[in-house]
Amino acid sequence: MFQTFDDLSDPSCGAPHAALLRAELKQLSLDGFLVPRADAHQGEYVPPHDCRLQWLTGFSGSAGTAAVLMDDAAIFVDGRYTIQVREQVNMDVFPAQHLINEPVTDWLAARLKPGQRIGYDAMLHPVREVRRLQSVCDKAGAELVALDQNPIDAVWKDRPEAPVGAVALHSEKLAGRSASDKISEIQTAIAAKDAGACVLTQPDSIAWLFNIRGSDVTHNPVPLSFAVVPASGKPSLFIDGRKLSNSVRETLHALVDVEGPQGFKAKLADLGKDGASVMIDPSLAGQGIADAIVNAGGKLVEAADPVLLPKAIKNDAEIEGARAAHLRDAVAYAKFLCWFDDIAPSGELDEIGAAEKLEQFRRETGVLKDISFDTISGAGPNGAICHYRVSRKSNLMIPVGRPFLIDSGAQYEDGTTDITRTLAVGEQSAEMKRHFTLVLKGHIAISSARFPLGTSGAQLDTLARIDLWKAGLDFDHGTGHGVGAYLSVHEGPQRIAKTGTVPLKPGMILSNEPGYYPAGEYGIRLENLELVTEPSGIEGGERPMLGFETLTLAPFDLRLVDRDLLSDAERDWLNAYHDKVLSQLSPLLDDKTLTWLEEATAAI
Amino acid sequence: MFQTFDDLSDPSCGAPHAALLRAELKQLSLDGFLVPRADAHQGEYVPPHDCRLQWLTGFSGSAGTAAVLMDDAAIFVDGRYTIQVREQVNMDVFPAQHLINEPVTDWLAARLKPGQRIGYDAMLHPVREVRRLQSVCDKAGAELVALDQNPIDAVWKDRPEAPVGAVALHSEKLAGRSASDKISEIQTAIAAKDAGACVLTQPDSIAWLFNIRGSDVTHNPVPLSFAVVPASGKPSLFIDGRKLSNSVRETLHALVDVEGPQGFKAKLADLGKDGASVMIDPSLAGQGIADAIVNAGGKLVEAADPVLLPKAIKNDAEIEGARAAHLRDAVAYAKFLCWFDDIAPSGELDEIGAAEKLEQFRRETGVLKDISFDTISGAGPNGAICHYRVSRKSNLMIPVGRPFLIDSGAQYEDGTTDITRTLAVGEQSAEMKRHFTLVLKGHIAISSARFPLGTSGAQLDTLARIDLWKAGLDFDHGTGHGVGAYLSVHEGPQRIAKTGTVPLKPGMILSNEPGYYPAGEYGIRLENLELVTEPSGIEGGERPMLGFETLTLAPFDLRLVDRDLLSDAERDWLNAYHDKVLSQLSPLLDDKTLTWLEEATAAI
Repeated sequence: MFQTFDDLSDPSCGAPHAALLRAELKQLSLDGFLVPRADAHQGEYVPPHDCRLQWLTGFSGSAGTAAVLMDDAAIFVDGRYTIQVREQVNMDVFPAQHLINEPVTDWLAARLKPGQRIGYDAMLHPVREVRRLQSVCDKAGAELVALDQNPIDAVWKDRPEAPVGAVALHSEKLAGRSASDKISEIQTAIAAKDAGACVLTQPDSIAWLFNIRGSDVTHNPVPLSFAVVPASGKPSLFIDGRKLSNSVRETLHALVDVEGPQGFKAKLADLGKDGASVMIDPSLAGQGIADAIVNAGGKLVEAADPVLLPKAIKNDAEIEGARAAHLRDAVAYAKFLCWFDDIAPSGELDEIGAAEKLEQFRRETGVLKDISFDTISGAGPNGAICHYRVSRKSNLMIPVGRPFLIDSGAQYEDGTTDITRTLAVGEQSAEMKRHFTLVLKGHIAISSARFPLGTSGAQLDTLARIDLWKAGLDFDHGTGHGVGAYLSVHEGPQRIAKTGTVPLKPGMILSNEPGYYPAGEYGIRLENLELVTEPSGIEGGERPMLGFETLTLAPFDLRLVDRDLLSDAERDWLNAYHDKVLSQLSPLLDDKTLTWLEEATAAI
Repeated sequence: MFQTFDDLSDPSCGAPHAALLRAELKQLSLDGFLVPRADAHQGEYVPPHDCRLQWLTGFSGSAGTAAVLMDDAAIFVDGRYTIQVREQVNMDVFPAQHLINEPVTDWLAARLKPGQRIGYDAMLHPVREVRRLQSVCDKAGAELVALDQNPIDAVWKDRPEAPVGAVALHSEKLAGRSASDKISEIQTAIAAKDAGACVLTQPDSIAWLFNIRGSDVTHNPVPLSFAVVPASGKPSLFIDGRKLSNSVRETLHALVDVEGPQGFKAKLADLGKDGASVMIDPSLAGQGIADAIVNAGGKLVEAADPVLLPKAIKNDAEIEGARAAHLRDAVAYAKFLCWFDDIAPSGELDEIGAAEKLEQFRRETGVLKDISFDTISGAGPNGAICHYRVSRKSNLMIPVGRPFLIDSGAQYEDGTTDITRTLAVGEQSAEMKRHFTLVLKGHIAISSARFPLGTSGAQLDTLARIDLWKAGLDFDHGTGHGVGAYLSVHEGPQRIAKTGTVPLKPGMILSNEPGYYPAGEYGIRLENLELVTEPSGIEGGERPMLGFETLTLAPFDLRLVDRDLLSDAERDWLNAYHDKVLSQLSPLLDDKTLTWLEEATAAI
């Protein structure tokens, strides 16, 4: 199993580990220290080796920060984790604060005293974040101290080793382009910014650029590494040599100079010599990287990681791969739905059982590389927790008479999937159907949208919400995120959200996942992946419009649809989508699943 | 008549005036000069005294800039004015460039040579714009020279005098608050920014703050003036004393120190003494203001004009005033529509005739202060020009068999109105009805929207467009702008547009005016003013939602509605709106108009 259901941590570590850290800080003449969840790559997954926030506090969520002073401390998490943090963390030692509404900078501003020295690990905090911290310390007359060594590492007993996951080549057939072609494109972008080189810190940018995949963290096939791409000439890749087989190393050598991670800082200093301009992404690159360049005399060119946009725009091969991956995944998913309908009404299925079975169907494809994230299997009230992770302790029986939410995805070599369905178990109330249908209307509004070139996800987000808003309801997450090509299931720069200001371009893949979550009752989320299509003409129109091709192929549960709440156009959309699901899947299904699917996709 | 239909200018002035200017530049050892349309107040209307761009080029539009070098020149206008600029300006002397796509900064960057000296009038260019210009000049090795005297003024023969329009007090009953109460609020905002004072340059901010109205420019009842508001103590108003009657002066003296405009620069220098912090809005305040403060030793605090937001949020008295103004305006408008339906089908009405008659009906209210902008009376192809101004030369007969667009508004002491209707003249084709109905669907989507606190106009804009987008159509302007309370018909900071990132707050008034403009054929725009309502609960919902109360009361032309393209909910909206129009207006109408209105608002 790729997914585990262990309880990841418990609150008892908070007091002793805070004491260990404070003793170490005292040794270092520091009055405080910041502990972000992130590693130096700012990715969604962090190897156990770098889970310092979890070691310190017990908190295992994917975003957060702790601040530790000698006589005070706090943990900062966002709205997704307000419940989880209270279960995992000792609130006496680390009272929870809201990461956005009560940010760490405000907390520090209220506590710092002149002359105090606050440390931070210079590789873990991006340049832009350090600027905010510096401004707070300056106002308070405190000193912000960049550290080369993380004081937690000195006191962390039994710290796991850094991962040395094997690197694999990602075939040009699947990637659609040679690595050297990609490198040229990025070098042109670097030269256009008048920079002599660019530092890449995001492993998925590096994986895309060099056509490699890794296995250092769960669910994300990326190699933890750094790279330096000069405006011309050979790039350098800084990676633990144990991750490279001889044949991978040989292929890479034709493209890049491969060095161990310890060579990275020396390279940065070298880059900065003679006043050279070096491009970094201030939202991603650690302050330590900027310092190494500037201290050597270099100048920084701050700009977005130049790989982000080309990586987000899938080429024909990647699109073909995504379609194939989704079709394959849909077969497994249809089997799961058919099985679920057999079992769940008995009331004897639990959340873990559903997640395990779904992974099993995906494994049966024979080509599953990983699941793309831990399946969110949310029964009843657990469904209302948007980013719920089921553990043996939290595991609930799936109740009859309520919707069941399951959000899952797969990593195949040809594509990454991400799908959420909300399933009827037994009879559903009129109110449940109303909620489901309002969410479905939002989903359809996104999927059926057409829009001109230049339109951003922020401009589309409201389409997913307006029917909920008119009913006095809403959901507290974005409507959609970018999805990688056998890379991260969450990638930028595009999003369908208030903050998604990047124009959508043909070839981008986004999720479309509005929801509604009555707290303590159940969760509803309906998610497909959508491919942005080329601008095309419309009869009677004058401007070509982009749109979406839905990649995901699975029925929406008609037993939760209130037909009267749908407009004619919405019913037409739903029936056409179900026709497509049936026609694409029927040649690939066993008889039992096919019979089930025929019923599940019947026109309404 | 408030509206005139004269041809404002012709292209023949371009060559001689450019020659006069260049001779003057030579005297001043300048190699170039920039001529914006704006005066020092950056308002929509500029008195003839300050219409330097028009004097130089002939261009009379509301936005634009000319750049003049010794051997080259250009005029920069936005998409609204691409046709007009070619009619008004000699393209041999001032080739037209697109203000956004080919900005003046790019044009300069391609032409400037090291050592050249480029002048600009330091009061006319806001700080933020000068920063962009400075950066271009720096890159080119050229010098950007701030001028105290505008070289055009030295060579402009028969330059009109500066206006000395009378200032009137705006009663506390209509304003809803005393000026001293408003001043306290603004002083608190200034102190919160750690500034010792704030400079106000927008006449409508000054008018709102001191409860006065002016008459220096057409259609906008504002007094051209500057003000300085200290964080505590008495503000100063810099205004030509001839604008003040004795009684107005006396009332103002209780609130502010009144000085002549010539005292303004000395006051700025005084403010800057001893390193004091002075707040300016870098998008509004001229660079000359910043220079005067900084040269005296002061520090700038850059922040949005603190009056903008309080002014945009109307209080109960202003809302009552807006409702009364709209009801009064609606009576005049219904009479106009009834008259139009009598006359227009003959094919013997022209654009000017329609605009004149509409103004006449408004004058008959007995309390019309002004029209709120020149009526856009667009027959056939002229309707497709979004910001068309009819002149005797452009005036067309209103053709039978096409929609006619008329966009107009009134200034009453209790409120400002702005309404666009598109009217059927004779039989309309199915295509015209389809276009009209698609625009109407967008209008209804905005008007019927509900949304949570914090929602911006940018988040709503797409609702007005999505049905057009699905038909391959769009419109190239924002969906809505803020509207003042007997002030500017266009005011910020809120907008319903891609760029409208300010959250909508209860009490704000916005226009809702989607459109569609098949070039060379006709224009469709449907505009009501909407008041943002307080958050309120919705049955079956859990979050209170804001919404819109429609202030404008006039039927949409049902002869242009394709009933089958409307959903049930849209038809319900339209019928309910028409019911409201009829019930509110019927006690106030003559028999003939009432009979007409009953038919025009019949349920569909």
